[in-house]
Amino acid sequence: MKIGIIGLGRMGKNMARRLFKGGHDVVVYNRTKEKVKEMQEEGLIGAYSLKEFIEKLDTPRVIWLMLPAGEVTDNNIDNLIPLLDKGDIIIDGANSYYKDDLKRAEKLNKYGIHYMDAGVSGGVWGLKEGYCTMIGGEKEIFDYIEPILKTLAPKDGYLYCGPTGAGHFVKMVHNGIEYGLMEAYGEGFELLKASKYGENLDLHKVAHLWNQGSVIRSWLLELLENAFKEDGNLEEIQGYVEDSGEARWTVLEAVESGVSVPIISNSLFKRFQSRQKDVFSDKVVAALRREFGGHAVYKKSEEVKKNIAGAGKVQAANPDEKFRR
Amino acid sequence: MKIGIIGLGRMGKNMARRLFKGGHDVVVYNRTKEKVKEMQEEGLIGAYSLKEFIEKLDTPRVIWLMLPAGEVTDNNIDNLIPLLDKGDIIIDGANSYYKDDLKRAEKLNKYGIHYMDAGVSGGVWGLKEGYCTMIGGEKEIFDYIEPILKTLAPKDGYLYCGPTGAGHFVKMVHNGIEYGLMEAYGEGFELLKASKYGENLDLHKVAHLWNQGSVIRSWLLELLENAFKEDGNLEEIQGYVEDSGEARWTVLEAVESGVSVPIISNSLFKRFQSRQKDVFSDKVVAALRREFGGHAVYKKSEEVKKNIAGAGKVQAANPDEKFRR
Ligand SMILES: NC(=O)c1ccc[n+]([C@@H]2O[C@H](COP(=O)([O-])OP(=O)(O)OC[C@H]3O[C@@H](n4cnc5c(N)ncnc54)[C@H](OP(=O)(O)O)[C@@H]3O)[C@@H](O)[C@H]2O)c1
Ligand SMILES: NC(=O)c1ccc[n+]([C@@H]2O[C@H](COP(=O)([O-])OP(=O)(O)OC[C@H]3O[C@@H](n4cnc5c(N)ncnc54)[C@H](OP(=O)(O)O)[C@@H]3O)[C@@H](O)[C@H]2O)c1
Repeated sequence: MKIGIIGLGRMGKNMARRLFKGGHDVVVYNRTKEKVKEMQEEGLIGAYSLKEFIEKLDTPRVIWLMLPAGEVTDNNIDNLIPLLDKGDIIIDGANSYYKDDLKRAEKLNKYGIHYMDAGVSGGVWGLKEGYCTMIGGEKEIFDYIEPILKTLAPKDGYLYCGPTGAGHFVKMVHNGIEYGLMEAYGEGFELLKASKYGENLDLHKVAHLWNQGSVIRSWLLELLENAFKEDGNLEEIQGYVEDSGEARWTVLEAVESGVSVPIISNSLFKRFQSRQKDVFSDKVVAALRREFGGHAVYKKSEEVKKNIAGAGKVQAANPDEKFRR
Repeated sequence: MKIGIIGLGRMGKNMARRLFKGGHDVVVYNRTKEKVKEMQEEGLIGAYSLKEFIEKLDTPRVIWLMLPAGEVTDNNIDNLIPLLDKGDIIIDGANSYYKDDLKRAEKLNKYGIHYMDAGVSGGVWGLKEGYCTMIGGEKEIFDYIEPILKTLAPKDGYLYCGPTGAGHFVKMVHNGIEYGLMEAYGEGFELLKASKYGENLDLHKVAHLWNQGSVIRSWLLELLENAFKEDGNLEEIQGYVEDSGEARWTVLEAVESGVSVPIISNSLFKRFQSRQKDVFSDKVVAALRREFGGHAVYKKSEEVKKNIAGAGKVQAANPDEKFRR
């Protein structure tokens, strides 16, 4: 079928390619025009203005947004509204907050425009392997756009999750789980490294081993295998971890629904802390220890040993101090 | 090569089978004699006493123990010592604590007996898929027993991890990671279930979906897919989770080496709590809330709503109370 894609970033560009290769007519539009040109050269239909984009689509128009979640996506939707007709369909493939979906669907419904939310997983590997896609919105519209989903996803790789917001909700929880899985691997490898066996352990080999029939084999562990292959001690990587919102929403959701999520919340908080150079709560604790026990504190001016991959190593340098009250 | 296996439980029996099918001569011994008989009928060499077991092996004897870790394994080693010759090899495939390995190796070395530690992953699926195996001990002995490992493991599925204890150490950390991964999935599915979309979400379909190209696909998620297929709401399963020691050792290790493991430790503590009917720390907190704020407490005699899969549901029944101080 004919589909328009707005946003040719890492995700949108490859999704457009996958749809084009799958036999669909794909109209593309993007802020930076070079990317439109590039796609045009590959055989896709380019549009250099929103107006041109809309004109090149057939009604009911099917428009897939693949933009940063939040304001950018909202603005794009607002710009589309006056150009669209009743019955047209907007699908938001960004990692949007499901509560934003509810607001947008309400707004668009007033114009007779259908709004679908699509949570997409698979990252840069999606072009080859397909995008695992979670859909929310009207069931009839899901049925209508199913040919697109079939092409985008690997076999069995898309699911109608329920009414508006359900797709992004399931994707949000997926990402929350992802945070927990990643941290669990992180802690395990740090323990290996900090141990007395650590110096002789080749973490790439361990990751590769664990992917062969062990209980913890996974796609994430395969990615980690790649990472350790390139840089066995991750020396080129700083332990500074961004987050892109979904785990925050997952934790907010947990608070609202009264579900205890120590693993997901700790994974999120660990990321926050990874971005701090000098953690204020640690300063408070160090200050208190001095107050009640006369324990030494490190002054700002002193050179504190850097403590990147292997906190254990630092303590081990001062073993007698361990466990001292 | 010729190998003797002591312990024909869920693991030992299938490992013996896999080795036998792989062309090795396998002598088996087990406390309960019926299992020896069963194996004999399948073509393996049975032994009905430790003495007979030892006599049926060629020197240097290669003996694989697949027994409960700790005392049972220790006792079996002690019983073997007087029957063995210098140069014989004992491999412990149980989930033993790596610190026990160090003691055993020291003891056995005095008799000229080699001790190897083998951490085995794969559970009941190992017969078919192979056992992912992590080995510690003398490198020359590893080389000698490698034909066995090659048969037991899937391709690339075994690794020499270092000196005595290294195999069980790596296995221990593997299990610690496993706890974290499992809890992360657990929290995610609970959030889905507790949400407003939960009632219409088929968790089996979601698990199946996420295994198709999503970032969190894994073997554990495939197992979960099976579980949800059989019982979509896990109604037949009580949320009571045992632990078998490795995560405790992992957390002990973290404490000793000063590595922060919030995900693994919380996963372990969550399991402890899953086994308590009335959590004392919660009683303390409830008591304190009454003291300072006059908040109501549930008396032991009152019927408190059971709160199994979906803590959220319980709170949601009383939404106005949410967030009240
Ligand atoms: N990357 C992943 O692994 C992944 C996976 C699942 C979902 N997602 C979600 O997919 C969406 C796109 O991600 P991505 O990785 O493709 O991002 P990206 O590579 O950064 O691309 C962003 C796209 O948005 C456009 N854009 C950014 N700011 C804009 C603005 N102010 N006005 C108009 N257009 C603007 C960019 O246009 P220009 O070309 O002009 O910069 C580009 O086409 C995000 O919501 C993300 O959360 C990403
Ligand atoms: N199950 C798994 O997924 C898995 C995975 C990796 C490692 N492991 C480890 O592998 C080892 C065996 O596990 P399993 O699952 O096979 O256990 P299992 O099914 O309970 O079998 C235990 C075996 O030990 C024998 N045994 C138990 N108590 C004994 C005693 N007091 N004296 C002599 N023999 C005794 C049993 O003999 P009887 O037949 O007479 O009862 C049986 O052969 C454990 O260390 C476990 O941690 C298990």
